[in-house]
Amino acid sequence: MDTPHTLRQQLYRIIFFTDTPAGQRFDRYLLLAILASLVVVMLDSIDTIRSQYQPLLTGIEWAFTLLFAIEYAVRLYCSPKPLRYAFSFFGLIDLLAILPGILALFYGDAQYLMIIRVIRMLRVFRVLKLSPYLRQANFLLTALRGSKQKIIVFFACIATLVTVFGTLMYVIEGPAHGFTSIPKGIYWAVVTLTTVGFGDIVPKTPLGQALSTLVMITGYSIIAVPTGIFTAELASAMRDGDQLRHDCPSCAKNLHEQGASFCSRCGNPLYTRTTEQS
Amino acid sequence: MDTPHTLRQQLYRIIFFTDTPAGQRFDRYLLLAILASLVVVMLDSIDTIRSQYQPLLTGIEWAFTLLFAIEYAVRLYCSPKPLRYAFSFFGLIDLLAILPGILALFYGDAQYLMIIRVIRMLRVFRVLKLSPYLRQANFLLTALRGSKQKIIVFFACIATLVTVFGTLMYVIEGPAHGFTSIPKGIYWAVVTLTTVGFGDIVPKTPLGQALSTLVMITGYSIIAVPTGIFTAELASAMRDGDQLRHDCPSCAKNLHEQGASFCSRCGNPLYTRTTEQS
Amino acid sequence: MDTPHTLRQQLYRIIFFTDTPAGQRFDRYLLLAILASLVVVMLDSIDTIRSQYQPLLTGIEWAFTLLFAIEYAVRLYCSPKPLRYAFSFFGLIDLLAILPGILALFYGDAQYLMIIRVIRMLRVFRVLKLSPYLRQANFLLTALRGSKQKIIVFFACIATLVTVFGTLMYVIEGPAHGFTSIPKGIYWAVVTLTTVGFGDIVPKTPLGQALSTLVMITGYSIIAVPTGIFTAELASAMRDGDQLRHDCPSCAKNLHEQGASFCSRCGNPLYTRTTEQS
Amino acid sequence: MDTPHTLRQQLYRIIFFTDTPAGQRFDRYLLLAILASLVVVMLDSIDTIRSQYQPLLTGIEWAFTLLFAIEYAVRLYCSPKPLRYAFSFFGLIDLLAILPGILALFYGDAQYLMIIRVIRMLRVFRVLKLSPYLRQANFLLTALRGSKQKIIVFFACIATLVTVFGTLMYVIEGPAHGFTSIPKGIYWAVVTLTTVGFGDIVPKTPLGQALSTLVMITGYSIIAVPTGIFTAELASAMRDGDQLRHDCPSCAKNLHEQGASFCSRCGNPLYTRTTEQS
Repeated sequence: MDTPHTLRQQLYRIIFFTDTPAGQRFDRYLLLAILASLVVVMLDSIDTIRSQYQPLLTGIEWAFTLLFAIEYAVRLYCSPKPLRYAFSFFGLIDLLAILPGILALFYGDAQYLMIIRVIRMLRVFRVLKLSPYLRQANFLLTALRGSKQKIIVFFACIATLVTVFGTLMYVIEGPAHGFTSIPKGIYWAVVTLTTVGFGDIVPKTPLGQALSTLVMITGYSIIAVPTGIFTAELASAMRDGDQLRHDCPSCAKNLHEQGASFCSRCGNPLYTRTTEQS
Repeated sequence: MDTPHTLRQQLYRIIFFTDTPAGQRFDRYLLLAILASLVVVMLDSIDTIRSQYQPLLTGIEWAFTLLFAIEYAVRLYCSPKPLRYAFSFFGLIDLLAILPGILALFYGDAQYLMIIRVIRMLRVFRVLKLSPYLRQANFLLTALRGSKQKIIVFFACIATLVTVFGTLMYVIEGPAHGFTSIPKGIYWAVVTLTTVGFGDIVPKTPLGQALSTLVMITGYSIIAVPTGIFTAELASAMRDGDQLRHDCPSCAKNLHEQGASFCSRCGNPLYTRTTEQS
Repeated sequence: MDTPHTLRQQLYRIIFFTDTPAGQRFDRYLLLAILASLVVVMLDSIDTIRSQYQPLLTGIEWAFTLLFAIEYAVRLYCSPKPLRYAFSFFGLIDLLAILPGILALFYGDAQYLMIIRVIRMLRVFRVLKLSPYLRQANFLLTALRGSKQKIIVFFACIATLVTVFGTLMYVIEGPAHGFTSIPKGIYWAVVTLTTVGFGDIVPKTPLGQALSTLVMITGYSIIAVPTGIFTAELASAMRDGDQLRHDCPSCAKNLHEQGASFCSRCGNPLYTRTTEQS
Repeated sequence: MDTPHTLRQQLYRIIFFTDTPAGQRFDRYLLLAILASLVVVMLDSIDTIRSQYQPLLTGIEWAFTLLFAIEYAVRLYCSPKPLRYAFSFFGLIDLLAILPGILALFYGDAQYLMIIRVIRMLRVFRVLKLSPYLRQANFLLTALRGSKQKIIVFFACIATLVTVFGTLMYVIEGPAHGFTSIPKGIYWAVVTLTTVGFGDIVPKTPLGQALSTLVMITGYSIIAVPTGIFTAELASAMRDGDQLRHDCPSCAKNLHEQGASFCSRCGNPLYTRTTEQS
């Protein structure tokens, strides 16, 4: 990217990119502001603190709303395609960050606004958009995408297991032992299958306990499935990243097996130069 | 498959296959019907809702029973080998889907019928029988089959651990602390080893707590075993699926990249016969 | 093994080996007997059943003791090296299987005898000594042995984490919230780190909850370590199993890389014949 | 290392190294002393024992303090760079091991001193500094370092998930059901996502239970991510450690088996220079 000239371009580069010291500083401060505003939300939710420092907290919240509003305005101003930015994922998140303040004007600070205020946290990923992290994140996403269908099959099985086990427990244990309905039974089945085990609903009858033993061992074993799927995908993704990364002189093929000395497509000799591992 | 002529063949293709737009639409609607009927079963199990909407729910249930009955009849009619379909896994599931309605006629809607009604969910896998998902499912099944014996050995160890630990806890803690019998002790051992930890039965004596510490760390560590087994199997299954399996005519290399037309070792041309992906 | 002649040799082969139909039948019956005797022990521990069927259960227990005693005697008689068998692992287990009955003569059926009676279960592994399972078990053992040192390092870290966290919680939460001593704190730390989470002792103070959040996330993350170690070891163990298994004609080296066409030790050409995958 | 001459050098070698029988003996005794002193701390924290054996325990603690003080002095004396040792990680740990005793003189044995006394446990890793364990530990550290960025991305996601879910539950369930503030909600979210599931705070409303079902399944599935990352890294680290890294003079093959003296592809002799294991 060539050096920008107008102020607008400079702002654009500082705010939207991290390849300049100024841009990195901006990201750092933004990160601090986001986290600080989250702390305020949390303190705001603790009664003892709220009752004492209500006005102070509201004030700080206002300050952050103002700050984020200014940032949003500047982003709109300096981005080359304002509309496209405004409707991009992060554009909407940025808008959400200032929305609660505005809504609070009309409705007062209702509880549900807290959710919107917390969603600000997603802006943290703006900062994680630094290239190294991004590459690693892409690695993970590639692995996830690669195992999408396997995972759907897996979840379909989980859903079925949970529904059937939940219904069985509802019929076996019955409302007397807290299994008041099938959804409740399913809730219990999820709690047990995922090995969370709150213990708010537990089987009392011997048959129920025998069945739940089965559920637990199932849950304990099949956790191997998502792990296995993801690990295998990730390993192969990384193995691909390990292949020699240099173009064949005659044809376009630019990935070759470990230690290949001839292009496997056109048969041209390759002059192996060991490459950096990604 | 050549285009069908008679109505029967067309129905057969639409209902049993997913390679026609009509067939895919049919599957989509069927999926919706199944899930809707499940929702009804669940609502039916919630007392508050049941007491109010009993007749409505019964009515809807009847509608679904009728719908599935018609579907079953059509399947029987159009399948080339009706008997073989009727006794196939999915054939029986389809029958089970209409059974509760019929049984309800004679016995009234008993609780246990709910289980049969929920088993309808298995029909969801009919729809998952779309080729891509099927291939992935086969991947998983191959891995599972490959590690069958390892898993049996693993479960034999788990069973032994759980029995021995359960008995020890029964002797150490005794009925006073909820370990009223060895089966109860085993139930506790499973709850603990699988890291579910309901907390309905917990060790009270120092010795019991020391022992359960051992159980927990065992359970925490050996979960690595099924995961390791499955991952390794799956990884090797996928690795195999990634390579052509035919020898290079001039050198010994007998595994090549996808779509390699020259040996990557000696540069000799390969007469690629693409192989099916396992 | 050549066909045996004397009765003693025949017995030896039937009882100690599984390569004859008679031997397999023997193993099957033995397995049933062991499991049945375990069921008796468990029923014996349930008060309601015990009070009713006490004499019956004692009778059955006697029958099993007699049965196992006879088996033990026969094993001693027909094994070529009786002493060596008697002091082998399984020899001692076999002895333990008849011990409780004898001890019961003098002391009555004390609780702790139940432990010995349950240890019979270990005899199940006799039957698992069938070659295919054995090979798989060896696979697992190889992987475990290979990762022994890594695992020791891992457990040393776990022990340290648990001790430090347990002490911290003891100091932070104090006896008032159930953390009555450092050992108790360590017990809690293990319950939490292994994600079992009984809930019998839980942090009440904000600081304690913050710290336990840290413990949980640590436990949730580091489970990756044993899994990773074991998976990697197992994968490499299986990869080794995948190598070409044929001797170099000139030197003794009998394992070679995938698709190696020359011995990597003596440089002699190898005539690759693809080999069975273990 | 050449044989030492002066007493000081001999001490240095015995105390700081493990390549001499004396040095190994020293490490063994040191390990025992550390563990024994830990046992004392723990017994000291159990009221019943403390009330009885207070003076005895204090005496033993004094003995250990003295012992460690002497050891520290000797280490300072015999190490060639005393200052550098004093400010090294283990130097500070060694100092911490004697600090509580000294502090106790002025302040009496306050609770918080227990934490310092427990930190002695870190000295155990001195003894684990034996080469084989060290190499394995390095293996693990390499894998961790390799996956650092992936793990940061992962933890950023976890933090966001936990915050958002925690806030949602706070708004849905409210203080009435124990979700008294957002931090409390986050604490619950961590307890649930990590599948610990204490059960001290549980959702009561249907909506809350539905949401927590989502949290549990998320937590159950994404545990695959750290496991996958670490396993893949470790596997590749071990794969690299398994091969020599130098080119075959005649063909391009640049990775060879352990101790290969001829290229397994072209049969050319290799001038093996064994490489350090990564």
